[in-house]
Amino acid sequence: MASFYIGVDVGGTTIKMGIFSDIGELLEKWEIPTRTEEEGKNILPDIVDSIEEKRAVYGGNILGIGMGIPGPMTDDGVVLKCANFGWGVFNVKNAVADLTGVGNVKVGNDANVAALGEMWKGGGCGYDSIVMVTLGTGCGGGIIYHGKVLTGSKGAGGEIGHIKVEANETETCGCGNKGCLEQYVSAVGIVRMAKKNLREDSCLNQCEEITAKDVFDGAREGDAYCLEIVERFGKYLGTALSDVAHVVDPEAFVIGGGVSAAGQILIDVVEKYYRENAMYALKDTRFHLAKLGNDAGIYGAVRMVLFK
Amino acid sequence: MASFYIGVDVGGTTIKMGIFSDIGELLEKWEIPTRTEEEGKNILPDIVDSIEEKRAVYGGNILGIGMGIPGPMTDDGVVLKCANFGWGVFNVKNAVADLTGVGNVKVGNDANVAALGEMWKGGGCGYDSIVMVTLGTGCGGGIIYHGKVLTGSKGAGGEIGHIKVEANETETCGCGNKGCLEQYVSAVGIVRMAKKNLREDSCLNQCEEITAKDVFDGAREGDAYCLEIVERFGKYLGTALSDVAHVVDPEAFVIGGGVSAAGQILIDVVEKYYRENAMYALKDTRFHLAKLGNDAGIYGAVRMVLFK
Repeated sequence: MASFYIGVDVGGTTIKMGIFSDIGELLEKWEIPTRTEEEGKNILPDIVDSIEEKRAVYGGNILGIGMGIPGPMTDDGVVLKCANFGWGVFNVKNAVADLTGVGNVKVGNDANVAALGEMWKGGGCGYDSIVMVTLGTGCGGGIIYHGKVLTGSKGAGGEIGHIKVEANETETCGCGNKGCLEQYVSAVGIVRMAKKNLREDSCLNQCEEITAKDVFDGAREGDAYCLEIVERFGKYLGTALSDVAHVVDPEAFVIGGGVSAAGQILIDVVEKYYRENAMYALKDTRFHLAKLGNDAGIYGAVRMVLFK
Repeated sequence: MASFYIGVDVGGTTIKMGIFSDIGELLEKWEIPTRTEEEGKNILPDIVDSIEEKRAVYGGNILGIGMGIPGPMTDDGVVLKCANFGWGVFNVKNAVADLTGVGNVKVGNDANVAALGEMWKGGGCGYDSIVMVTLGTGCGGGIIYHGKVLTGSKGAGGEIGHIKVEANETETCGCGNKGCLEQYVSAVGIVRMAKKNLREDSCLNQCEEITAKDVFDGAREGDAYCLEIVERFGKYLGTALSDVAHVVDPEAFVIGGGVSAAGQILIDVVEKYYRENAMYALKDTRFHLAKLGNDAGIYGAVRMVLFK
């Protein structure tokens, strides 16, 4: 009888799921809605029902279930706070094991799990230690050191979006502080920078609603104002990543999330400021774009349970 | 026959050594000079001779030799560059094993090894993950994550002294960059800050040669200028350590090196700026003074070989 592994990436609006062969091939992926009402009490049962349906279709054993959750987690699978779902502190790993009867369950923070996925089959393939930066609505980070997720003692390892990069900020970040990296390099942050002091001669004035993509597109076409914003973006992110390198010294940085669709122009400007600020031993750290897109989470989730 | 372990801390002018029992008690410590002439070719033979002398005195087996070296090292014991001694790239671990006939040899970067020592028997005792900051002539860092040294992929893990903290610096750091943390928080850095724009009404004008100790002593006595310098010191170090926490999320920071003799006033000012900049999940990270002084290196060296 064939054996399978399940990867689950629990997001704020949808839950992405995948069924993988026992050598790590993605056989099928699908999504179910995230029912956040009633303090998220349906989320785990919904996932388990969906797994059971697939188990019936594929007719084999499920040897492991990996799961990424958007909140701080301990290495033991205890979620410490999951504001989006109203979840309190509880052991997700044990709950999923009890509901499914599968013993090999692992749960991790979604940014860390995506980093593991990118190292396994994406932009970080071939490396052993990477830092993945996810530039979406926010700015997340995931650190893999010698093949393992660096969770941190309070589940806040790799929370690089809240590194302070600007002493003179007046607006408050979602975390309550001011001047966090996320306020400048996330999709929201780039738009915020672009709208502030927007110059009349910029092509951005023709946009109905400015997006991060518009800013990078404008820069590629030579718009002076967009180029300035992209430089500021690169300076904040490149400098912050040099801080990160002086702490964990990864082999490579992998940059993903919606903003990373900007491509090589983004890598170039980040690398420029990174090298300017990194000490000699760290100047050659490599930079790559992520490759798995929205599938990084399910790949990383399965990677946690597929090999020991 | 009794069994012993040897800890060695190789410094630029002296080599500190200790012989430990098989339950990790320091039985005796001693020093020999570091002969850096002729590209440091006498250093390892001198250490081995000194170990052999003690082996004869104690009349037992040596079960392990741990060693800290002032330079970047890989996890395999290869020194990558040791500017002070003129050493090139070679495997120190294998060289010591060959010269002594002891198989259980481990070698690490001195700042990392000292961190391990402080976690075992010093200011970080009882923790599993710490960041140790050594404020001496320079500013070194050592990271212990889940009981193991975080070396980094190029041996530069924990090189926090070269995190960029000041965009407007005109003087160059030893590493070649400008605005590194070390330029403000090391003993040399504190004195440099104090001498620049020294105010006429400060007690520091009575010092023949200003030291970091004078600055902290002045601050304790209420000298307004010294208090300002101590605030700047705390702001640079506290902010940088909040960056570090957003990457590795340690349970505690342990602050050692000569400057840490300033005591609680130093911890207080660093903690103040740390908490101001750290995100909510990280605000409660603990701060401690180091306890082992110059012995941290030999303790940490032995810790590497005493337990697996």
